[in-house]
Amino acid sequence: MLALVLAIAGAQKARADEGMWQPELLPAIADKLTARGLRMDPAALTDLTEHPMGAIIGLGFCTASFVSPDGLIVTNHHCAYGAIQYASTEDDNLLEKGFVARRLRDEQRGNPTLRVYVTESIEPVTEAVRADLSDALSGKARFDAIEAAKKRLVAKCEADPGHRCDVYTFYGGAEYRLIKQREIRDVRLVYAPPLSIGRYGGDVDNWVWPRHTGDFAFLRAYVAPDGKSRDFDEDNVPYRPDHYLRINPQGVNAEDFVMALGYPGATSRHSLASEVDYAVAVGYPNRLSNVERRLRVIEEQTADRPDAALKYASAVATLNNGRKNFQGMLDGFAAADVPAAKRAVERTVARDPAAAEALERLRSALDDWFQEREARRRYDAVVRQGLLGAARTLYRAAIEAERPDAQRKPGFQERDRSRLEDQQRQLERRLDPSVDQALLALQLEEYASLGADERIDALDAWFGLQGQSPDLSSARATLDQMYARTELADTEQRLAWLQAEPETFRQSEDPFIRLAVALSETDLRLEAEEEAREGDIEQYRAAFMGARLAGSESRPLYDDANNSLRVTYGSVTGYSPRDAVELQPFTTLEGITEKDTGAEPFNAPDLQLRAIARRAGSDYASEDLDSVPVNFLSSLDVTGGNSGSPTLDGEGRLVGLVFDGNYESINADWWFSDRLTRTIHVDIRYMLWVMDVVSEARELMQELGVR
Amino acid sequence: MLALVLAIAGAQKARADEGMWQPELLPAIADKLTARGLRMDPAALTDLTEHPMGAIIGLGFCTASFVSPDGLIVTNHHCAYGAIQYASTEDDNLLEKGFVARRLRDEQRGNPTLRVYVTESIEPVTEAVRADLSDALSGKARFDAIEAAKKRLVAKCEADPGHRCDVYTFYGGAEYRLIKQREIRDVRLVYAPPLSIGRYGGDVDNWVWPRHTGDFAFLRAYVAPDGKSRDFDEDNVPYRPDHYLRINPQGVNAEDFVMALGYPGATSRHSLASEVDYAVAVGYPNRLSNVERRLRVIEEQTADRPDAALKYASAVATLNNGRKNFQGMLDGFAAADVPAAKRAVERTVARDPAAAEALERLRSALDDWFQEREARRRYDAVVRQGLLGAARTLYRAAIEAERPDAQRKPGFQERDRSRLEDQQRQLERRLDPSVDQALLALQLEEYASLGADERIDALDAWFGLQGQSPDLSSARATLDQMYARTELADTEQRLAWLQAEPETFRQSEDPFIRLAVALSETDLRLEAEEEAREGDIEQYRAAFMGARLAGSESRPLYDDANNSLRVTYGSVTGYSPRDAVELQPFTTLEGITEKDTGAEPFNAPDLQLRAIARRAGSDYASEDLDSVPVNFLSSLDVTGGNSGSPTLDGEGRLVGLVFDGNYESINADWWFSDRLTRTIHVDIRYMLWVMDVVSEARELMQELGVR
Repeated sequence: MLALVLAIAGAQKARADEGMWQPELLPAIADKLTARGLRMDPAALTDLTEHPMGAIIGLGFCTASFVSPDGLIVTNHHCAYGAIQYASTEDDNLLEKGFVARRLRDEQRGNPTLRVYVTESIEPVTEAVRADLSDALSGKARFDAIEAAKKRLVAKCEADPGHRCDVYTFYGGAEYRLIKQREIRDVRLVYAPPLSIGRYGGDVDNWVWPRHTGDFAFLRAYVAPDGKSRDFDEDNVPYRPDHYLRINPQGVNAEDFVMALGYPGATSRHSLASEVDYAVAVGYPNRLSNVERRLRVIEEQTADRPDAALKYASAVATLNNGRKNFQGMLDGFAAADVPAAKRAVERTVARDPAAAEALERLRSALDDWFQEREARRRYDAVVRQGLLGAARTLYRAAIEAERPDAQRKPGFQERDRSRLEDQQRQLERRLDPSVDQALLALQLEEYASLGADERIDALDAWFGLQGQSPDLSSARATLDQMYARTELADTEQRLAWLQAEPETFRQSEDPFIRLAVALSETDLRLEAEEEAREGDIEQYRAAFMGARLAGSESRPLYDDANNSLRVTYGSVTGYSPRDAVELQPFTTLEGITEKDTGAEPFNAPDLQLRAIARRAGSDYASEDLDSVPVNFLSSLDVTGGNSGSPTLDGEGRLVGLVFDGNYESINADWWFSDRLTRTIHVDIRYMLWVMDVVSEARELMQELGVR
Repeated sequence: MLALVLAIAGAQKARADEGMWQPELLPAIADKLTARGLRMDPAALTDLTEHPMGAIIGLGFCTASFVSPDGLIVTNHHCAYGAIQYASTEDDNLLEKGFVARRLRDEQRGNPTLRVYVTESIEPVTEAVRADLSDALSGKARFDAIEAAKKRLVAKCEADPGHRCDVYTFYGGAEYRLIKQREIRDVRLVYAPPLSIGRYGGDVDNWVWPRHTGDFAFLRAYVAPDGKSRDFDEDNVPYRPDHYLRINPQGVNAEDFVMALGYPGATSRHSLASEVDYAVAVGYPNRLSNVERRLRVIEEQTADRPDAALKYASAVATLNNGRKNFQGMLDGFAAADVPAAKRAVERTVARDPAAAEALERLRSALDDWFQEREARRRYDAVVRQGLLGAARTLYRAAIEAERPDAQRKPGFQERDRSRLEDQQRQLERRLDPSVDQALLALQLEEYASLGADERIDALDAWFGLQGQSPDLSSARATLDQMYARTELADTEQRLAWLQAEPETFRQSEDPFIRLAVALSETDLRLEAEEEAREGDIEQYRAAFMGARLAGSESRPLYDDANNSLRVTYGSVTGYSPRDAVELQPFTTLEGITEKDTGAEPFNAPDLQLRAIARRAGSDYASEDLDSVPVNFLSSLDVTGGNSGSPTLDGEGRLVGLVFDGNYESINADWWFSDRLTRTIHVDIRYMLWVMDVVSEARELMQELGVR
């Protein structure tokens, strides 16, 4: 039916809200921003050390922002989830009840891995990275040269204590930038609404509009009295940021200008049509099926074991999100011919002969990769599973530790030490040996269904897999023995292995350590092959994107998301998901009552339902809606990592937080649709209403400058 | 959560589109009709022998209308389904392909049971029915007196050949009317779109908006050359109706006035709050569960037997419709407190002491009935199942046939003879003995779970059911024997039994006939009890409704639907099913392409999809929509039986056909909501577009006066 499904109209580009813009590109689109309704100087958004950019912070996996001179931070409830969970006990379940710290000393210590990152500078380093690269340098050698250059730049930058630096790749390698961030390590919980507000709608409403989720929470950054970053300490004091956002308690109305600042993770807007073809035909269907099978295994294994179920609750949430995401991708691609649109772009770029050549080489390298990619994914899924993954990481860390720090693989340097430890520690809360065994058996089964020539000898040898369609019974017996004999499920054991020499591993009798050692040579070979491929692909993609950049002088080209700070702008607007259905841009308090069933995830607190019924807190109501707006939709262009991004009005005041996208936005990672791609925000008026009416958080509201 | 669900706003009555109005009441609401946009004299709608009422016809289960001087009839595809199916053969599947008769002689004979009824008069007969009723006459005696009076009136009226007459009960028995209809028995198929247009969306979209169904077809009424009704005959000629509807090919726009004329079957708007309580707590949940179990049994039994599956296809469609309907009822009642609204009405009426007394007696009689109703339903479901139901009908017909015609039970008189025969014949196409046995076993199981004192001795004795929770194994063995030995599955046998004397039944060895005979005495006793109850309930309800009527002088009170001709008016309008969701009143051609998957029920013909893609037939487009409207929504008040009702604009011209309601309208049978109850129409412009672009039915369009 592809010939007849809705074509992606070329005309949709006219409104041009699309784009996760690098801040330095904003002056080039200043006229559009102003025409849309920005009432600040667009140039003011390019300076990271000024307001409002100086107030934007990263949490690593989410975005947040400073909202008071005393380091108060606002972000999504789901971004503060770990902190709230960490502060909860069985007797005092802050997650369920919500939490209000009325004084500084009541603020709760967050999970130790929680960090706040304040971007201090973004420095172009393309020349420095490329200094040792000739066009002739390709494959593994090219990869190594780039990696070495990046490590040098990072090491130099991190000589400044309390900072974290990284070299980010832009435009597939056409540009590199060194980003320096201040790292704050003491982050405390200030406020969280009850779970039944903060996660209202739960997995059911995930990626869904209309939405009624109070997805917000407040944290506070703490530093040593001298202003330096340090770990949690009773004597730490609130951090005083140079800039913080002001609130607009009136919020925005339909069609108003809005923008969001944040750290989008990864998109594939500049990927080729053939990459979409692969994703639709092979990638997503296989991942969807794998996710569904993993979910079934976990469900079966934990059915009568609440303790194990608890350990996998977070994995199940992630898998459920993945399932909805992959299905949404496939639904999205079925509704619009994205590869055709991408091919049109490729044809235009390829008018330049140099670009055409780069494109052809890139396409060919990708095609080669697609031949092996699924086989590699299945092997990786086996060897990264639970205890086996841990054993391999531990052995690799030991091997790397024998080298001077600068020569170690990224991820195994001194700067990565505490993360490695955290990872091993967290396994304790997230792994149950019998569930892990069932999952490893599942992955092994998927791997064993590969052709014999697609499989890996070392793994086959260990599990006794032979020929086409190997018998799995001996593999299952091996698994039984491995899980019966291993001591790696013990956290102290794993932490001890993190200090061990490689030779100790080679002499170990632990079956997982032995398998990790047995796979080590293969793993290194596969890694080298992978890096050689990446070296080539980066070379061709950089050339192709370089040609696109060269052709885009009159019309700036934003890059794919790469975890660096971006700006997206647009307006508050609904959409029509299908014929005769119009979704309005705002939901209201009454919609909560309407959805409520009394059962999770639609179990709003009675206090809240009663307050809605008596129209309490009508000061926060929108005149247009005659009710308090709960969530709203915009045409902003965001992706994972943008969660918690402050939504600002035309004057740069906080009017909400980004927390999700609509179902039709799922495949926007590949192609943005003006007509369908929408971002979901929690409205500042609902945040204030909840703080005031439900939580009576007067002190917090005072700090925010409201009333 | 009831305390917090949306209350039924008293204010919603303000727009007062609600009402399936008896034609004679229209002058009393003339001002409202005119204010709404009627541009005809409302009094013109009261005369059944004038235009437009004279053009409205019934099909028994659906509504239709004359649309040409030569007896051309338009109705829904699903109302003409039996005729289209009858005209189809394995080699020439008109149902799948659609059908266009380009000349009269190509028109296809419809199914022999298809009839057209033209209402000729509605005569008040309350006095005549009540002549022999005193207030003291109650129960069974009252029931019998009413039945006898009705039969006398019907017999007298039907002395005029070619007519069908019935006495209809209005306002629960406060009024009676004799309705006389001309009966036309030769009805032929003129035009049907392909199934994939006429049933587009199938069961999935049933009761759903947005909708894209081409639910229309054309028939023609034929009579003898002398103008009298007769069965199909080659020499019959097209019937020339006194009146026929004219088409408005421009259709209507959003907010325009529309009205529909038709034969709604049954509603419960005047039922008591306690009747809703019972329906919600007992009636619908039990029926829903029963329907689901029957569906499962049929699915299991027909899984590997396409012939049996075909026989039950129509039953499955009916059960699926029932499942959606019962679930929709329960969903609707969960969303709005209908009993509270009904109690408010009851309180108002009960201010009058006589009304209060009638209400109290009615309530008490109903409460008594509720005690036994579910037990009776389960018994009925057993004894009405398939072959057993047929055996009981045949024996009863034999018993009744011994009496003079006027004294026989309605349903068993001479006037019912051909229907009884058709019924027995049709069983051949709809019954498979092993499926029937499984269904009877299921109903027996539900019956056996009743308490011993709720069960019926005669049935228990036959199947060996004893005490509480009886063992069913002997009953199952009995069923095996019965189905192995019976000859009643043979149609000729059943038709022969329709001629047999009661004594022949009593001597039969056929197990189903023997069981029918064994149950006969009980059946007659239960029927008498039921009639006694009905006599009482009718007496009290008539008194209660009489009081309501007396209090409604300033504001006319329409009656519940009772299969008699009604008028409903309102406007073209969308609705909001929930917070932030607005459903527009029109769907468009593009929505068909959008929904299409290529697989049933979303498998529009390629020809159609291509025509949509190239915007063929844009003459039929609405300027507002920039596309051809497919279906539209209105605030009209309809129910089952209204299917096929012509939708007229303010000047009485045809602009569409009623064919369904939205999901939220399902429980409107009990309570109409201005905010949520909507009717779904097929738009005249889509009908013309399909006839023109897909079917090239030029002759038909010419007859309709278009181009």
